[in-house]
Formats: sequence, structure tokens, C-alpha cells
Amino acid sequence: MKLLYPTSLKLDVASLEGFGVSLHPYDVKALIPEDLIDAEVLVAWTNSAENLKDAAQRMKNLRWIQSLAAGPNDVLSAGFPSNVTVTTGSGCHDRTVAEHTLGLLLVAARRFDEMRDYQVQGKWAGHLGGPQPDRPKDRFTTLRDANVLIWGYGNIAKTLAPHLTAWGATVRGVARSAGVRDGVQVFAEDSLPELLSRTDALVMILPGSESTKNALNSERLKLLPKHAWVVNVGRGTSIDEDALADALEKGEIGGAALDVFAKEPLPAESRLYKAPNCIVSPHAAGGRPQDAEALIAYNLRRLLAGQELKNVI
Amino acid sequence: MKLLYPTSLKLDVASLEGFGVSLHPYDVKALIPEDLIDAEVLVAWTNSAENLKDAAQRMKNLRWIQSLAAGPNDVLSAGFPSNVTVTTGSGCHDRTVAEHTLGLLLVAARRFDEMRDYQVQGKWAGHLGGPQPDRPKDRFTTLRDANVLIWGYGNIAKTLAPHLTAWGATVRGVARSAGVRDGVQVFAEDSLPELLSRTDALVMILPGSESTKNALNSERLKLLPKHAWVVNVGRGTSIDEDALADALEKGEIGGAALDVFAKEPLPAESRLYKAPNCIVSPHAAGGRPQDAEALIAYNLRRLLAGQELKNVI
Ligand SMILES: NC(=O)c1ccc[n+]([C@@H]2O[C@H](COP(=O)([O-])OP(=O)(O)OC[C@H]3O[C@@H](n4cnc5c(N)ncnc54)[C@H](OP(=O)(O)O)[C@@H]3O)[C@@H](O)[C@H]2O)c1
Ligand SMILES: NC(=O)c1ccc[n+]([C@@H]2O[C@H](COP(=O)([O-])OP(=O)(O)OC[C@H]3O[C@@H](n4cnc5c(N)ncnc54)[C@H](OP(=O)(O)O)[C@@H]3O)[C@@H](O)[C@H]2O)c1
Repeated sequence: MKLLYPTSLKLDVASLEGFGVSLHPYDVKALIPEDLIDAEVLVAWTNSAENLKDAAQRMKNLRWIQSLAAGPNDVLSAGFPSNVTVTTGSGCHDRTVAEHTLGLLLVAARRFDEMRDYQVQGKWAGHLGGPQPDRPKDRFTTLRDANVLIWGYGNIAKTLAPHLTAWGATVRGVARSAGVRDGVQVFAEDSLPELLSRTDALVMILPGSESTKNALNSERLKLLPKHAWVVNVGRGTSIDEDALADALEKGEIGGAALDVFAKEPLPAESRLYKAPNCIVSPHAAGGRPQDAEALIAYNLRRLLAGQELKNVI
Repeated sequence: MKLLYPTSLKLDVASLEGFGVSLHPYDVKALIPEDLIDAEVLVAWTNSAENLKDAAQRMKNLRWIQSLAAGPNDVLSAGFPSNVTVTTGSGCHDRTVAEHTLGLLLVAARRFDEMRDYQVQGKWAGHLGGPQPDRPKDRFTTLRDANVLIWGYGNIAKTLAPHLTAWGATVRGVARSAGVRDGVQVFAEDSLPELLSRTDALVMILPGSESTKNALNSERLKLLPKHAWVVNVGRGTSIDEDALADALEKGEIGGAALDVFAKEPLPAESRLYKAPNCIVSPHAAGGRPQDAEALIAYNLRRLLAGQELKNVI
């Protein structure tokens, strides 16, 4: 059995040895070479669309694709036959995306964006410094005593939540099924109206899919308090960007800190670049899979043992 | 006995009742009125220099000043006689300053400042997003596996450290005496050369005093690795700002995120506004004392009992 691993990231290949599977590096931006075309396993990371489309056509023995992306929309749209199992890299991005999300929340609370605008003009943002009211009810200024709602309560959310709690935030979650997960109360979407109305910061970590399209629409935006911030690190398609730009321009919410957009790079004509209290981060939260070898080795062993793989789509 | 409390912040005065001491509000920007001039206790917060100078002259019965600032340089320079005990508000700013410091560290690691510069020009900072190397050795990009050195290992540092550790950083401290504090190894200043040379992020939380003046000078800046960031939330006087601007302009360190400056507001002509990789925050970390009532009540009881006060300078 041949396993193809990408050279687009540094992998400790030695930790994939010992399975009696031959390991072959490949270039994710070129077509798969003839002598590797009979491989049964493909590990994918930042492959070009051509590479994937071609692999879908020519790799007749392919059984399993291990993507290292948490949301492998690229693999899913390449046209692989349905007998090829696709597993995601969910879990490899928990810490990086959670850290970036906390960063965006703190930029929003402390207004490092506004401070920066003053600084580049050689000005002191005096109104943001000096004596301040402590936890004013009409603004999001700190995680302490803040209600943070995480919509899409999966692996990344579970990594992020304890950090927010440690700063004094009350964390609640929304997912497809309700229940208590690691001590955090998670609700189904029918609770959203009640939850949104008492949210100080809404963190969206939803995957891109038909079911999440425009999940945050103008109706739901209107349920948020006027001071609430929206942070999105999941997929841009889960927010109706026009409705969000409207809400920002009319001052109907506190602000938005966005790492993902319906179209990336965010087109120059998007209103989000200039909307008031909007922070644009260039899909920079993840992008550096961690502990990928452990996931690949785990799933490889299970494949060989005929067991169900982890992170199957 | 009369206690004067400031109206410059919201205090739950009811929690100071029950000591047989009469409680009187006063305006910190005006002179102390004649009928309150015989007070024995003054709680100070953002008082004007005139108010303090006048109080130092006219309040002949004054025994104790409880400042709510962690570094009450204003009270200390007002000329109160030496028989007046001054206690600081150290402890009331731990969470706010620690949160801001984490924010500055994440702005530095994730370069939210640079993203902002691109955004205001309507541009996508593509080089900061997409696939990234994971924890490159030559840059400070994440708290995970980062060596964070906190110079001035007091109350704020103790609050901050567990949050950094939770993200995977290795935290070490520097203070006047060495030892293990809450599980963190704290060194004396003679260890600085060795410590600085393996620091990814240096966090300075030193008080303003003669002994901390220009603590971070050009010699010590040269000991930092080329990628290291300097964060200062203590007092601006603890850094030689000219030496820091030199180091930034020559690219000798990774960057600096500063909340405090030798002169505040930072003068328009300061090189720090435009120095590369320099982030200017307008003394915005603290400025909102928390749980001040508990500290005042604690010290008031001890004063009445003839016991030593907490946070005596
Ligand atoms: N910005 C970046 O750089 C970056 C990096 C990595 C990942 N991401 C994005 O983040 C997403 C989440 O990653 P993850 O690893 O945390 O994934 P995950 O563990 O699969 O979690 C996804 C969560 O979303 C919930 N969900 C899915 N569809 C939903 C719907 N229609 N309504 C409500 N909840 C729904 C799931 O609910 P159940 O738990 O009930 O199934 C689950 O809690 C990825 O899909 C990817 O798009 C972004
Ligand atoms: N940016 C803001 O908005 C803001 C807000 C609040 C406070 N601050 C500043 O932060 C400072 C620290 O506050 P804190 O509450 O953490 O104070 P703290 O508990 O008194 O801690 C001060 C620390 O500095 C150390 N230190 C003092 N002089 C030193 C020297 N010459 N060399 C090395 N270490 C020295 C002390 O060492 P030992 O433990 O060995 O005595 C102690 O660990 C305040 O003084 C204030 O200036 C800034």
C-alpha cells in the first residue's frame, strides 16, 4: 500500500513508519506522478484545485483522503468518487484558531484597532486610556462578566472555552444537539432568539455547508444587543455579509471581527473594509496544522485494522 | 473619625459602613472643603495635582491615604508629611492589566496591527493569512512553546502567568529576590543576561522608581534575540525609549507593544509612533480599580485595630 504525503508542510515522516505502508512525498501544486498514481492513501494540504481534480480522475485505487484542513471544502468539491473516504484535519487547528479568536476578542474589547488608527496618525488615543468605567453595561470592554456565545461548539470551541472562562466570561454554546459538553451548556438553534438577546460577544465557528449558509442573517443580527460584537473564525458563508455591513453602518451592533469571508481574499469593493467597528483578519487563524502525524498514524492504523476512521465527513 | 471617598469612581459605600467611621464623598478635582479638612483617612483616585498638594498642606489630622492606583506616584510627589501612611491599590488592577497585556502579546504574535494597516487601505494582508509555518524559530507568532519573561513579578504578573501557561508558554519571572512563586521560577536581576538571550517575549511590569529607571537599556536590549518582542505595562521610565527606538529602527528586536511611556501622552515628536513594529497603547491597561471596597474595608479595620496595613509603600 502506498501513502502519499504532502511536502507543503513539515511532517515528521518517521512517526508514520512501521505500518508496512510505503510513504511517498508529493508536490501538492503539480499533478500526481505516474509511479504514484496507484496509491491508496492521499494526505492533502493546500493542494491546488488542478491537483485534486486530476487525482479524482486518475487515482483509481484511492480509498482514503486525509485532509489536514478542518473544513476541507477543496477536497469535497474536486469530484472524488463516493467510495473514497474523506477525513478532516479537525483537531489539528484547535489551538491556533482558538488563540487567534481570543486575540480578536481582545482587540474588540480593548479597541487595539482604533488605537492603531490613532498611532499611524501620530496621535494619542486618549479617550481609550486613562481612568475608565469598570465593566459598563452598554459596551463590550472586557471578558470579565461577559456573556460569550459560541455558535458551532466543536473541537475549536472546546479548546477556546476554558480560556474565556478563566478571564471571568460566561460561555454558552450552540450546536446541532443540546447538552452539557465539558461543563459548558450547549443549546440547539431553537434557543438562539433567547440566547442572542443576552450576548455580549458572539463567536461563530461553524463549518461551511448548506445548513450553515447565512446562519447569522439580518433577523438574528437584530436580536443582538446594540453593544454586542460578532467574531467569525468558521466560514464566511455562515454570515449574510450585506446584513452585517448594514448593522455595522447603522450602529445596530457593537462591531465585528472577521477572519473568514464569503469570498477570499475579501474583494476590494466589499463594504466590510470600511464599515465602522469592523476588523478584517485575512483568514489567518489556522493554516498551520499541529500534531498532524498523530492523526494520520491513528487513522492509518484504523484503516489497516478495518476500523472506522476518525473525522469522517 | 472621618473617611473621605472619591466620587471619581463608583464605590459601593455601604460595604464601608459598620466601623463607626463617618463616610464623606469628595470631589478629587477641587480643594477639600473646610468641613472635611479634619479627616483622618483619604481615599484617592485620579485626584488633581492641586487637590493633593493642598490636602498635603491643610489636612493636619490625616493619618492614612489609600490610593486606588497600583503605582501612586501622584500621591508620593504631593508633599504629604512622612507620618501619613500611604497604601497602594496594588491588587485592584491585576485582572484588567493582565487582560490588556495578553491582548498586546496576541496583537504582537498575530500582527493585528499590520492587518489593520492593510484594512484601512482596503487591502487584504495576504502574507499574514493562509498557510503558515508552525511555530517558526525566527519569529514570535504564538504563545505555544514561547519563552515569556516577566520582569517585575508582582500581583499583576501572578494573575497573568497562568493564562500564558495555559496557552503553552514557558513563563519565568524577574524580581528583587529569587525563588519559586506560585509554581513560576523567579530570578534576581543578575540572571538577566542569561534569561534575556532566550526570551521570545519580554513583559515588563515594573513600578516607576529610581531603581527601575532605564532598567531596559541599550546593553540589555542587545541581549534579546532578533525576533523577541518587548511589552511594557508597568511604567514608561523603566525603558530607555531612545535605545528602544534605535533597536526597532535597526530591526534588532522583533517589536514592542507599549502601554506606558516616560512622558504621557506620548509627545507627537516621539519616534515610537512611527518606529517599525511598534504598537502604542495610550495607558489603557488598568484605570478601572476593581474590588476597591474590599481593600479599603480591610485596611480600615486594620487601622482601627492598630494592625499593619496592606500595600504600605
Ligand atoms: N479561520 C481559520 O483559519 C479556520 C481554521 C480551521 C477551521 N476553521 C473552520 O472552523 C470550522 C469548525 O472547526 P472544528 O474543528 O471546531 O469543527 P467541528 O469539531 O466539526 O465542530 C463543528 C461544530 O459546528 C456545529 N454545527 C455544524 N453544522 C451546524 C448547524 N447547521 N447548526 C449549528 N451547529 C452546527 C457542530 O455541531 P454538533 O457538535 O452538534 O455536530 C459542531 O459543534 C471548520 O469547519 C472550518 O470551516 C477555520
Ligand atoms: N498600565 C497600567 O494601566 C497600569 C495599571 C496598574 C499598574 N501599573 C504599573 O504596574 C506596576 C506593578 O503593579 P503590581 O500591582 O504588579 O505591583 P507589585 O505587586 O508591587 O509588583 C511589583 C514587582 O516589581 C518588582 N520590582 C520592584 N522594583 C524592582 C527592581 N528594581 N528590580 C526588579 N524588580 C523590581 C517587585 O519585586 P519583589 O516582588 O521582589 O518586591 C515586584 O515583583 C505598578 O507599580 C504600576 O506602575 C500600570
